[in-house]
Amino acid sequence: MKELAYYDGAFLPLDTYAVHLEDRGFQFGDGVFETIRVYDGKCFALKEHLERYRRSMRELAIPITDADAELVGVFYELIEKTEIKDGIIYFQLTRGTSPRSYLPPKINLPHLGVVIRDVPIHTDWQEKGIRAALVEDIRWLRCDIASLNLLGSVLAAEEARKKNAKKALFFRKEKNTVTEGEDANFFVVKDEVLWTHPANEMILSGVTRAIVKEKLAPALGLTVVEKTLTPDFVKGAEEAFFTNTADEIVPVTMIDRDPIADGAPGQITKKLLAAYKEHVKEELAKPMEE
Amino acid sequence: MKELAYYDGAFLPLDTYAVHLEDRGFQFGDGVFETIRVYDGKCFALKEHLERYRRSMRELAIPITDADAELVGVFYELIEKTEIKDGIIYFQLTRGTSPRSYLPPKINLPHLGVVIRDVPIHTDWQEKGIRAALVEDIRWLRCDIASLNLLGSVLAAEEARKKNAKKALFFRKEKNTVTEGEDANFFVVKDEVLWTHPANEMILSGVTRAIVKEKLAPALGLTVVEKTLTPDFVKGAEEAFFTNTADEIVPVTMIDRDPIADGAPGQITKKLLAAYKEHVKEELAKPMEE
Repeated sequence: MKELAYYDGAFLPLDTYAVHLEDRGFQFGDGVFETIRVYDGKCFALKEHLERYRRSMRELAIPITDADAELVGVFYELIEKTEIKDGIIYFQLTRGTSPRSYLPPKINLPHLGVVIRDVPIHTDWQEKGIRAALVEDIRWLRCDIASLNLLGSVLAAEEARKKNAKKALFFRKEKNTVTEGEDANFFVVKDEVLWTHPANEMILSGVTRAIVKEKLAPALGLTVVEKTLTPDFVKGAEEAFFTNTADEIVPVTMIDRDPIADGAPGQITKKLLAAYKEHVKEELAKPMEE
Repeated sequence: MKELAYYDGAFLPLDTYAVHLEDRGFQFGDGVFETIRVYDGKCFALKEHLERYRRSMRELAIPITDADAELVGVFYELIEKTEIKDGIIYFQLTRGTSPRSYLPPKINLPHLGVVIRDVPIHTDWQEKGIRAALVEDIRWLRCDIASLNLLGSVLAAEEARKKNAKKALFFRKEKNTVTEGEDANFFVVKDEVLWTHPANEMILSGVTRAIVKEKLAPALGLTVVEKTLTPDFVKGAEEAFFTNTADEIVPVTMIDRDPIADGAPGQITKKLLAAYKEHVKEELAKPMEE
């Protein structure tokens, strides 16, 4: 089996019509999500993703009625049932169902949905690098919440593809800063230092970003500076790359029509990617926590 | 019958689980909506709402595959089946279903959902006025699109209710301007002039707003000026009111802890509300357009 879903207690084929017409996720995008990569049948960085998931819920004041162990049980049952060894688990939780009103009802019964899919890593992107397109960042001012209000990224993805770029790189016009990719955090290398946007309300700070910053860069003797970056600074960098769960680390070799340095994936980026793959192996070799 | 829904060709009880798990509305809020008031079994300002609906679709590049006449047919069938004479028709259209990816698929088959409910007009609000609470406007920069990315309004509604206010009045911090209410446009009266935020990307310019601006104000000899307004200007106004489809015109008598003028509904606001009710009657007395 290639894919399967879970919704509110039941395992269902993915093409099931199972969501309530007045689910607040459907009417307002009133919910949160996470994406986890499955490597060799194991969920990577589960603890970190569950932490971010809980944080997003707290920020939206969605009550926590589910237990981590329950969620993890569902994830592994999906892996077992589908026999997907390498893929993506997407899960989302909406605040619940209510007669349409912005004001949430006093009692919410959140709805959990989970989907597993056989999504390969873009190894071609990792090897050759990709072109990014600067797209104006018009998203709301709480990008730090992994919410279901994602139209900004939908529109940016469309705009970037029209410009023959694989990914949009958001540019916040009123602040003259490059924030992050449509679905990824963004780093540049300059003077052997890694530069990336601070983990504030303007970006969704990712688990891969944290691994690069807290583990891989220090191990390679690299300093990470969190700072707002101008488009000029970014385009004049020695190297650039995206980080996210689905594709790990992806070199950016061109932004709009400007190559980054010589237009080839950078040496430090390559080292970080190799270190990331090693880190994943090591983590998955550890015994699972209960 | 008190309420009923329609989803993709079928009339359904409102508590039906009918939406696809990978509907882009459910995962990204990738869709548009409109709200129409039904008076005495007739849809008010149908043409204007359908025009805004089409505009929202165009701005999001959602293909137009449905016809106005079809939609109107569904609305009137819902009215007939439920015998709701006075209420609200809410309709939304999502881009369609796809394996989760920000980039929309090349071919989209949009899903239409419609709900009718017996929602009375807040006549108590109209008579006594309401208190509004200034809440920071953190929404995205395309508030002119009636999209399903509505978390900004959900959070604002919660914040306003915590402050014992009936409605949030958005305040865009970086511009020091008052934009609109959580679900309504906003006007103030000063020196016998009506002031309201320009119909640009910072507000969802409503049908009721247009009626006030283009019909009622001129008929009463009042000038309307579209201009960004500071919180100080607003709090120092002689009168203030919200406009929207559900509640028509609602005086704002207090913002946070500051009464507007003497804290009672203003004379010009009262005149506009009376003129609005008259206008609705006149419009509904006209024969229906085909």
